Amino acid sequence: MRIAFLGLGLIGGSVARAVRAHGLAGAPAELVAWTRDGSGPRAALDDGVINEAAPDAAAAVDGARLVVLAAPPLACVELLRRLGRDGDLHHSLGANATVTDVASTKAALLATAADGGVPYVGGHPMAGREASGFDASDGTLFSGRPWVLTEAVHGGDAGMVRELARACGARPMDLDAATHDRLVAAISHLPLVASVALVEAVAGTEDWPGAQALAASGWRDTTRLARGDVTMGAEIAASNAVAIAARMRDLRARLDEWIELLEAPGGPDVAAVRDRLATARQRLDG
Amino acid sequence: MRIAFLGLGLIGGSVARAVRAHGLAGAPAELVAWTRDGSGPRAALDDGVINEAAPDAAAAVDGARLVVLAAPPLACVELLRRLGRDGDLHHSLGANATVTDVASTKAALLATAADGGVPYVGGHPMAGREASGFDASDGTLFSGRPWVLTEAVHGGDAGMVRELARACGARPMDLDAATHDRLVAAISHLPLVASVALVEAVAGTEDWPGAQALAASGWRDTTRLARGDVTMGAEIAASNAVAIAARMRDLRARLDEWIELLEAPGGPDVAAVRDRLATARQRLDG
Repeated sequence: MRIAFLGLGLIGGSVARAVRAHGLAGAPAELVAWTRDGSGPRAALDDGVINEAAPDAAAAVDGARLVVLAAPPLACVELLRRLGRDGDLHHSLGANATVTDVASTKAALLATAADGGVPYVGGHPMAGREASGFDASDGTLFSGRPWVLTEAVHGGDAGMVRELARACGARPMDLDAATHDRLVAAISHLPLVASVALVEAVAGTEDWPGAQALAASGWRDTTRLARGDVTMGAEIAASNAVAIAARMRDLRARLDEWIELLEAPGGPDVAAVRDRLATARQRLDG
Repeated sequence: MRIAFLGLGLIGGSVARAVRAHGLAGAPAELVAWTRDGSGPRAALDDGVINEAAPDAAAAVDGARLVVLAAPPLACVELLRRLGRDGDLHHSLGANATVTDVASTKAALLATAADGGVPYVGGHPMAGREASGFDASDGTLFSGRPWVLTEAVHGGDAGMVRELARACGARPMDLDAATHDRLVAAISHLPLVASVALVEAVAGTEDWPGAQALAASGWRDTTRLARGDVTMGAEIAASNAVAIAARMRDLRARLDEWIELLEAPGGPDVAAVRDRLATARQRLDG
């Protein structure tokens, strides 16, 4: 059972470590990886995580039963185009191969795979951290976490992708790509952009040096997402832009209500502010 | 050396624990506390953290060299009014007493102390957590953190408040109340309200059950502040409303720019999004 990784940073590396430790469906797997600059695969080879660092994408894909795209979303779209019937990697893909991925957005990837005749089942393990690169990878990152699987197209083998999720200790969860993208816009992509906007509203202003000296855990936690990988962030934002923008309009409407509450003539109604905070807190756990 | 705490939740309790462990200026202190419902002082007495749970505020203040107001901001304003020359606690305050506090906003407290002739030096230890109440207190909470001291009025002894900060392992830092309130609006109060607005934009919507099932550490961290004590949050927002609202307008302007970027005809400019993320990340550490 040969598994090819195209991309091997935090997420791909974490998947590879888990498969190395647990095998796939209980059987050991042969892992091969390729990335554009080759640094992740070299480190993974040195660590004994993979069996082979492929010289190019075609060599990695050749003979693989499962191809895991583990690059930023737009790079995954490009790889799916290359794996499609008009692409340079199409002839390297075996007859019984399935392509999956671990990207944060799914609809653009699904559409590309469907258009190109790629046997594809999209995947999204729901965990991350702000560090990036293979050096930050961790075979337990997805333990106990949901792992979304989207619609299979062109004979993609969902059962094998489920086994990949289980090998990582994750819980496979079927969800159509459009719904997935709408839901992660809410709980993942909106928090990312809101975190960046918060940094932009404060860091770099004339008050920043003094404010920074006073910043505590609240500031650190609310801005943690703004420290993530910028290419990943940009490709997530770009590939789910419509859904994110819709959520940002909702956030802006709530901010407008808060501004009105705080700027009320004679000062804010403390009881109303308290009620609003209590309602938000209840909903968070409801 | 008698120290009185009016209020004894997370912050007051953490200060009391540190003073119990380290004394004040190297000498042991006698700690007395009063709160409206008395539960914090009872627990603190059982734990050996304080020497006496006072039956009322006057009994706590009586004979104290240092009075620490450790209630939410508006409750502290009310206590300062009672400690002022027209208040019922004024006659209990000794001739050499100093009043301080640990509240997140300072200008309203300073103005009340100045008006009422209270010997006052405002304080704000820059640390917190989302848990509240004496049970969540921790004598190391302020270790290595800044502890802001505002302008002394009516003979308030700043040296003693500095010793209180040092007893907690904190770093005393002089800052005028108006600047303090502007800076904490940026790095503490704006993140709080933004966190609540984020919850309001997502939790309780029809997508929430599905989205909640996928939520990971990014959602948890960006919404952590929305889990804090609601009375505390409401009184912070109300007592620093003008500065917070100004910062919220800045945040909203940044969100508008993001919405424009994401809704660009033909899709977002990925390089522009990436540059913006990179700039924010640099500023965060700059």
